[in-house]
Amino acid sequence: MKIDFKKELESASKGMIMIHDPKLLINLIIRMLVNKLQIKHAAMLLFDPVQNAYILNISRGLIGIKIPKNFAKFTHESPIIKIFNTKEYRPLTVDRNALVCDDINRLIWRESLLGNGQAMEVKELLHNVSEEMQMLNTDACVPAYYQDKLMAVLLLGEKIDGGKFEQEELNFFAALASDAAMAIRNAQLFEGLKEEADKSRKLFLQTIAVLGSTIEAKDKYTHGHTERVTKYAEAIAHQMENNGTTRFPESFYENLYIASLLHDIGKIGAPEEILNKRGALTKPEHDIMKEHSNRGADIIMPLGLHKEIIDGIRYHHEHYDGSGYPEGLKNDKIPMTAAVISVADAFDAMTTDRPYRKALSFKKAMQEIENNSGTQFHPKAAKAMVELIKWEKI
Amino acid sequence: MKIDFKKELESASKGMIMIHDPKLLINLIIRMLVNKLQIKHAAMLLFDPVQNAYILNISRGLIGIKIPKNFAKFTHESPIIKIFNTKEYRPLTVDRNALVCDDINRLIWRESLLGNGQAMEVKELLHNVSEEMQMLNTDACVPAYYQDKLMAVLLLGEKIDGGKFEQEELNFFAALASDAAMAIRNAQLFEGLKEEADKSRKLFLQTIAVLGSTIEAKDKYTHGHTERVTKYAEAIAHQMENNGTTRFPESFYENLYIASLLHDIGKIGAPEEILNKRGALTKPEHDIMKEHSNRGADIIMPLGLHKEIIDGIRYHHEHYDGSGYPEGLKNDKIPMTAAVISVADAFDAMTTDRPYRKALSFKKAMQEIENNSGTQFHPKAAKAMVELIKWEKI
Repeated sequence: MKIDFKKELESASKGMIMIHDPKLLINLIIRMLVNKLQIKHAAMLLFDPVQNAYILNISRGLIGIKIPKNFAKFTHESPIIKIFNTKEYRPLTVDRNALVCDDINRLIWRESLLGNGQAMEVKELLHNVSEEMQMLNTDACVPAYYQDKLMAVLLLGEKIDGGKFEQEELNFFAALASDAAMAIRNAQLFEGLKEEADKSRKLFLQTIAVLGSTIEAKDKYTHGHTERVTKYAEAIAHQMENNGTTRFPESFYENLYIASLLHDIGKIGAPEEILNKRGALTKPEHDIMKEHSNRGADIIMPLGLHKEIIDGIRYHHEHYDGSGYPEGLKNDKIPMTAAVISVADAFDAMTTDRPYRKALSFKKAMQEIENNSGTQFHPKAAKAMVELIKWEKI
Repeated sequence: MKIDFKKELESASKGMIMIHDPKLLINLIIRMLVNKLQIKHAAMLLFDPVQNAYILNISRGLIGIKIPKNFAKFTHESPIIKIFNTKEYRPLTVDRNALVCDDINRLIWRESLLGNGQAMEVKELLHNVSEEMQMLNTDACVPAYYQDKLMAVLLLGEKIDGGKFEQEELNFFAALASDAAMAIRNAQLFEGLKEEADKSRKLFLQTIAVLGSTIEAKDKYTHGHTERVTKYAEAIAHQMENNGTTRFPESFYENLYIASLLHDIGKIGAPEEILNKRGALTKPEHDIMKEHSNRGADIIMPLGLHKEIIDGIRYHHEHYDGSGYPEGLKNDKIPMTAAVISVADAFDAMTTDRPYRKALSFKKAMQEIENNSGTQFHPKAAKAMVELIKWEKI
């Protein structure tokens, strides 16, 4: 069976660039080599700029031949890397596009090698390469260059039919190795960038959580309030979907999460004697406290966050019948993030001790929410909360 | 002059994948087409999944022939897109790997086209394609598919020698278009991911700034303090490098920036009556205030930020002679972020009004810093601050 190398190369290279999972990509390439081209096993040393070394990427064999595990990282001093990476040694491998086991002995016994001055040095290096290849169970090493830089070395086990590598095959491997090295490098860069993006996103959300918790350093009666409201709000939203009354887009949950964490951040400016007062607030004191929802929205304004988030903070004290603050919004004019937080916030306030009263039981709080559905609370959010409490899902 | 298409294709495709700037990449490809292959101008319609449309990516001509500007976005209903994107029309273009102007008339006047049932529909579409190509000054359209999906269409102007496109040329264009479309898509994905990472990073830093400013809502005598300290600290660090006394790695500046923004965040828990007291603090009050540096470090601990940041917050009240707090660290045991913030913090405290005294002039404050260099302040940080004030760089 004769292989059409051009066609194989084209079909192998095609689309490699669109696979952005390095592990998947390397697997595909190695599997292709092993299966289609009838080699017992194959592996790839791929340059990693972060480690400034060549990393052994896979060793997959048809009949269980594996490369030793401790051969994971090859420095620039490793013989295989050195021979391909040193410009003056290039003539040794350039004709064949590779370094094949059988060639090495021939090279070592050749009288003149490069220049006579280097003969001993080169022969020693070739000896070491040969040893390293034996350890790695490798019959041929194929280098992949990009802009004259060694990107990778393909390590090929023996052919299943036991035959020697022909030049046409080696040329094919060289072309493929070069395409593959670039595709893998591309995928690795992609993965790195993705990790960076995820890390920054996570850091942002954690910083929001720290920001949200600062108010608890001031308001000693509400320890853990922010965290609980955030948890309740998420549960309410999920229950609204589960009971079929509402559909939220995926983005709603992150916006709700951030708004819940920050819903009371505006209290940061309120005087301690009001925040921590034992007993009911006077009308002027209550008016000052009421400023916290607008102030909270203003505090986070510079972040340019989604409107749902800002609205969730600004309107979490609006009532469904229009009797809330700051704007007296009614019914569906109240943004959904705010409507959900309102129920979660009220439930936590009722079920924790306050300076002027003891906590209500969950059941009592549930009745309160039920009684105030459609007046204070959005009916769908209230219904979901009542269900969560009734079915002990909270 | 005969072009070696295979060689051209190989050299053009090579390395496209490693260029992650879509604009640069498109420019390179189009320039290559126009210059090497002697076409008057070329452009590419590239599928954008976000817009679910094909975007005209460039039109670059040797002799100033340009494609009209309003042709920026091609929907699936656009004739050129439709003819390549509809499976049943594929036979019309598959033989030539392209749709060439001259072919269209031949196709239109052919008696049987696909099946007779569709003849009118197809002929109308071909008419429309022809019109669209004329508007776009295009002699040939070459589609690029990936996994049977139309990724791009290459739009080619006429050849400079006025000749017709040969099949060998069209095949070359088809192969190139396919490689190019994937490389461009790859670059676009890369750019998108990079933007996302940058955005999240920026959002994190902005949230840190909001977090840092929360303390100012409580401590009314220090309006703008955080922002100024952050500005001074950065200037001090730069000056320490400029005057040759110190070298900082690039990462130091971001760590210093974050630590400066958050250096007083621990004050968030301190009682208002102490924070805003008119007159000197008593010993017990001062002891409470001293807790803010450790508390600040603790507040941000969950974020897992760099040690330089946490140290900058925890140790910004240490003195060079060991007389500071919280740990009485001495000399170079004090982390550099903290040593820099210490000078910036003291300078701003001195040069702003406080409840119990008026602001010092910059010159007076400079003398204070000079006098306390080596006792309170790190000599290098103090020297830099003195220079900044003396030379009016602040």
